[in-house]
Amino acid sequence: MTATAGNSAPVTQKGAAYGLGIGPGEADLITLKAYKILQEADVIAYPALEDGASLARQIVAPHMPKGRIEIAIRIPMGPPADSIYDAAALEIGEHLRAGRTVAVLCEGDPFFYGSFMYLFGRLAEAGFPVQSIPGVSSMMACAAQLGAPLAAKNDVLQVIPGPLPADRLKSQLADTDAAAIIKLGRHFAKVRQIIAELGLTDRARYIERATLDSQKMVPLGDLPDDATAPYFSMILIHRRGDAWK
Amino acid sequence: MTATAGNSAPVTQKGAAYGLGIGPGEADLITLKAYKILQEADVIAYPALEDGASLARQIVAPHMPKGRIEIAIRIPMGPPADSIYDAAALEIGEHLRAGRTVAVLCEGDPFFYGSFMYLFGRLAEAGFPVQSIPGVSSMMACAAQLGAPLAAKNDVLQVIPGPLPADRLKSQLADTDAAAIIKLGRHFAKVRQIIAELGLTDRARYIERATLDSQKMVPLGDLPDDATAPYFSMILIHRRGDAWK
Repeated sequence: MTATAGNSAPVTQKGAAYGLGIGPGEADLITLKAYKILQEADVIAYPALEDGASLARQIVAPHMPKGRIEIAIRIPMGPPADSIYDAAALEIGEHLRAGRTVAVLCEGDPFFYGSFMYLFGRLAEAGFPVQSIPGVSSMMACAAQLGAPLAAKNDVLQVIPGPLPADRLKSQLADTDAAAIIKLGRHFAKVRQIIAELGLTDRARYIERATLDSQKMVPLGDLPDDATAPYFSMILIHRRGDAWK
Repeated sequence: MTATAGNSAPVTQKGAAYGLGIGPGEADLITLKAYKILQEADVIAYPALEDGASLARQIVAPHMPKGRIEIAIRIPMGPPADSIYDAAALEIGEHLRAGRTVAVLCEGDPFFYGSFMYLFGRLAEAGFPVQSIPGVSSMMACAAQLGAPLAAKNDVLQVIPGPLPADRLKSQLADTDAAAIIKLGRHFAKVRQIIAELGLTDRARYIERATLDSQKMVPLGDLPDDATAPYFSMILIHRRGDAWK
């Protein structure tokens, strides 16, 4: 990295916390800024399942520095658990008070529906310096992998969470220019049904685990009727006609 | 860059074009992937004003390799000029036919309202291998700089271009969970008026040139009545209440 190697000044501030957007999955979709903060961090925290497995930790594995303090924040399935974030903020706060730099790994972008905001709020309210480092969101990565622009010109682009009630989904999607429907998981069949009722299936593409080796993408209408979707999946509804015309 | 230095295999494919998301402005908000493709590119193209000045070229200046062929695509103000993109696609196509790797610099993310799609469409239709490398969009960077999540939980996030007619803007913004209003420029006064009429001013923040040295951000209501906005500016309307509660 010749162009930046000359700059040896630290990019982090002692006793500060950083929410690092690490991108959608492919290791090299992390930014140089997040990469550098990761190398300098004394403590590296990341969300994990209850068994300790962490997609965020896996994504940055090729870039992880050795010998750092690691904190796996074990988050149970379901709605955000306040007590988990309270405890994690306390633990991170202790490190910050001791003058350590703490990096919190965030899949995609930290402030785009990310759970980092629960830590951010707690740390900021406790008076600690805390900063979000923006990252490549899965929405941008899905569009790139599909080879199809998200939105063009004066399109309104809607980002719509799948768990919304069916009637809200239907009203949001009526007359849409372009949309990304996120958080599909167990809401996939409901969302697919609504897209069909609105006559949007021909404009819809499905993608899961974008940029990971296990990536899968297909026109929505080509999926079998009983198809299911993981949480890390998305439907993109494209504008009518080719965006570039 | 110890963790990746061992991998010396080229990441590019000879005779292919890449739309490189270079991020919102701060040089280090480019991804490792885009950085590596930039170092390997034989030809580097970028949008420029008619006088040749290019924000994209400025953003990556610290990372620009020496001695490459450069193409400044001079784009007149106003609606996309088909003839300009036709000519640029022809010029890039000549390089691709000669087996050269071409990187096209794109501010933010290439497929998030980016002009790269006009080249992408032309090159793809002409049968050239062409790929978009996702980047950090200005929307994510604005939220990070403001220290305020874009959207949380089951919020619908709307991305709304400022040039839309006033009645469309008003209906899109009514009852919004969260919104990013982009492409402000000469539409700023109209947008601000609509936000006021809908009683949303208290939830709105204004930011321009996010992550650049010239960045400016302020609650929308704190701007003087006669304030103007450059094209690279955005208004974020936040959800009611604190996102992290």
